[in-house]
Amino acid sequence: MQMKKLYGGIEAGGTKFVCVIASGPSHIVDEIRFKTTTPDETLGRAIKFFQPFISSGQINTIGVGCFGPLDVTPESPTYGFIAATPKPGWSNTNVLGILRGALGIKIAFDTDVNVAGLGEYKWGVSQGYDPSLYLTIGTGIGGGYIKEGRPLVGLLSPEMGHLRIPHDRELDPFQGACPYHGDCFEGLAAGPAVEARLGQRGETLPDDHPFWDVEAGYIASALVNYVLSLAPQRIIIGGGVMQKSSMFPTVRTKVQELLNNYINHDVVLNKIDEYIVPPALGGRAGMLGAIALIMDSGK
Amino acid sequence: MQMKKLYGGIEAGGTKFVCVIASGPSHIVDEIRFKTTTPDETLGRAIKFFQPFISSGQINTIGVGCFGPLDVTPESPTYGFIAATPKPGWSNTNVLGILRGALGIKIAFDTDVNVAGLGEYKWGVSQGYDPSLYLTIGTGIGGGYIKEGRPLVGLLSPEMGHLRIPHDRELDPFQGACPYHGDCFEGLAAGPAVEARLGQRGETLPDDHPFWDVEAGYIASALVNYVLSLAPQRIIIGGGVMQKSSMFPTVRTKVQELLNNYINHDVVLNKIDEYIVPPALGGRAGMLGAIALIMDSGK
Repeated sequence: MQMKKLYGGIEAGGTKFVCVIASGPSHIVDEIRFKTTTPDETLGRAIKFFQPFISSGQINTIGVGCFGPLDVTPESPTYGFIAATPKPGWSNTNVLGILRGALGIKIAFDTDVNVAGLGEYKWGVSQGYDPSLYLTIGTGIGGGYIKEGRPLVGLLSPEMGHLRIPHDRELDPFQGACPYHGDCFEGLAAGPAVEARLGQRGETLPDDHPFWDVEAGYIASALVNYVLSLAPQRIIIGGGVMQKSSMFPTVRTKVQELLNNYINHDVVLNKIDEYIVPPALGGRAGMLGAIALIMDSGK
Repeated sequence: MQMKKLYGGIEAGGTKFVCVIASGPSHIVDEIRFKTTTPDETLGRAIKFFQPFISSGQINTIGVGCFGPLDVTPESPTYGFIAATPKPGWSNTNVLGILRGALGIKIAFDTDVNVAGLGEYKWGVSQGYDPSLYLTIGTGIGGGYIKEGRPLVGLLSPEMGHLRIPHDRELDPFQGACPYHGDCFEGLAAGPAVEARLGQRGETLPDDHPFWDVEAGYIASALVNYVLSLAPQRIIIGGGVMQKSSMFPTVRTKVQELLNNYINHDVVLNKIDEYIVPPALGGRAGMLGAIALIMDSGK
């Protein structure tokens, strides 16, 4: 009997870490989840989880999808570092360096959204859709653009949550919550912006609250910009905000209204339910994407 | 003496056509320019120009960069057609089919901006910059994104002129001139929008007219969105509007202000003059890009 090669994967999120040993979604050997606390403690737990699998020769590579802002330019002196972040203790943490130093094996490293997009492309809802866009709307907003099986990296890894979009201050006088850009997309539509505006977390707001229509308008504006610039064959949106029952239908309708038949393509005009979709891997996209990242590295 | 292989190129613009026989910028054998009139007359002149070079065996392939909106999806039944356009007589013209039918040789076909971006990448100011973005701001606004030597095509060829951007109606009450989207980027900032707003063509407006500062703001907003989504290593901007003496410096400064140190990269923070640049090939980017397109096709 031939054994499938095993890989290590880390979904390094700002809220929780998931570490996994797997060869793919149908073969997960071990998995742990724990809260993200200090870098020392959190990375220490990850290292401790992987060490026995490395010592026994079961794995010799790990993929990591990490929260940011992250330096993912291999030529950069701070490659693998988390840059300035409001997450206490994590600013300027050399995540990749600490893991490599402790584990001594090959590690592939990318942003959480790039890695989740890769997971959906390899095993999820964007299989066969090239290029595809994975977007998450939660505490922050980020996007990963997967082209020919690889996340786009240019001058930097895209930071598409911070897009400048129309903001009707009569409809929504909120000034925006982004410390850099005020009322950019993330500043208007991410979780902290919802909470700052309404005094309660989005999760506790009823599904039929009128604000969700405003929120859907911001998401639709940003999606229109992604469609026009990046021309994805499929758009996957994850994150807490999209759990609201009316959000996908409203966003889809608004995207069609805003494009106003300009994009003369069947999938936009008639099959938008198949164009703007939720993730298939759900909460497992991150950890499976980390496996996909390391499986495909060096190809 | 070895002769360099010759290629045909067509810059098929909405205002003028340029047809060229060349092996590259340093070896142009013949070239004609003429006004874009009806499809029959205009394509007929192009065909007549190329026929002797084909009969004599001097060329056996042609590259075409064409104005749009254009269908550049090879699988589409209207591949190579110009779609609905305000340009009289050109709606639903099968440009590629007419040229292929008359000339009987291999023809590579793409949008004018993709082809101009390719020309700049092969012989101009974006040589070695991957990915790069070529933007033109004139009668319309369009962009070509060149990644690994090829223009990005996904669900469609990008239509990034129609981006949704912030529009301060107190500062600029103009409602926008785009027939599809009103105050999208093109609807606010392309030539017809300038003329509709001020009652005179931008070319006749003094370089120090206060409107140019508003215009620069729209361009900067769009550039910020391209930087955040597409992460180009260099941005080239052509077209009439950028000829205004203060436009490049003002746009660069506004891009830095809007990004507000969020993009922690030397070229954005300290060398923006090298990041946002005019084309090197100027009026020759289109015709040379058409040569580059056919030279590299099939690679």
